[in-house]
Amino acid sequence: MDQAQAHAWLATAVEEARAGLAEGGIPIGAALYAADGTLLGRGRNRRVQDGDPSTHAETAAFRAAGRQRSYRGTTMVTTLSPCWYCSGLVRQFGISRVVIGEAVTFRGGHEWLAGHGVRIVLLDDPECVALLGGFVADHTDLWHEDIGE
Amino acid sequence: MDQAQAHAWLATAVEEARAGLAEGGIPIGAALYAADGTLLGRGRNRRVQDGDPSTHAETAAFRAAGRQRSYRGTTMVTTLSPCWYCSGLVRQFGISRVVIGEAVTFRGGHEWLAGHGVRIVLLDDPECVALLGGFVADHTDLWHEDIGE
Repeated sequence: MDQAQAHAWLATAVEEARAGLAEGGIPIGAALYAADGTLLGRGRNRRVQDGDPSTHAETAAFRAAGRQRSYRGTTMVTTLSPCWYCSGLVRQFGISRVVIGEAVTFRGGHEWLAGHGVRIVLLDDPECVALLGGFVADHTDLWHEDIGE
Repeated sequence: MDQAQAHAWLATAVEEARAGLAEGGIPIGAALYAADGTLLGRGRNRRVQDGDPSTHAETAAFRAAGRQRSYRGTTMVTTLSPCWYCSGLVRQFGISRVVIGEAVTFRGGHEWLAGHGVRIVLLDDPECVALLGGFVADHTDLWHEDIGE
């Protein structure tokens, strides 16, 4: 995929992250796109908003997409390198590609996914770094809770 | 842990699986226990019931337990070997142990978890095999959808 498309899709995930921040939540967003560019689902981390530790951005986007017979050709776009939980989601359901806003604040399982045939597009998006990096600096305990540390 | 305790905890997960079957859902259940034996949360696969592909038994039990500061010492009990999605959940959040009803119908990531220090107690429970095995034989397409195959 070209960088322009990757950044255009990332913008949807960033919108979700910003909305989460405005709600007092952890600013991580994600979106699931079909091979033809259709947006299947989008979502954001909802630990704070719903008291729900199971809703990471990627699982929220996956849920919002509803039941799908196959994930072949789909792309998960996320503002942050996916944690093991979300990396496991990608591997189990055969999501073909992951576009990642940044892997500076946190480095999850994207190299493991690459080793299992998932195409990884790692952007180095300064807005993603600033959004989550600033939040983590101010809410370290909450951040550690979200990644089980 | 002794086998009697493992089977006693598994009974909670089996109750969830049976309830799922009665609802027309995929009969997989799970429960999360604290180190002192307190039941923190329990749940079942809800793909059919809620049209929600993100709710596997383990993620349902994890959600039901609400926000926890740490999962150190906790045990995830599940009727079936956890798929990559649910294995990733266990690894990311540092759940200490997984008690598994069976790994005959499906073999997920439990050996990967063992390699990362998670204690695995693999039972070979005939009721778990019969519950899911019978369902899969009758609903193969639905089962393949649930594991992304």
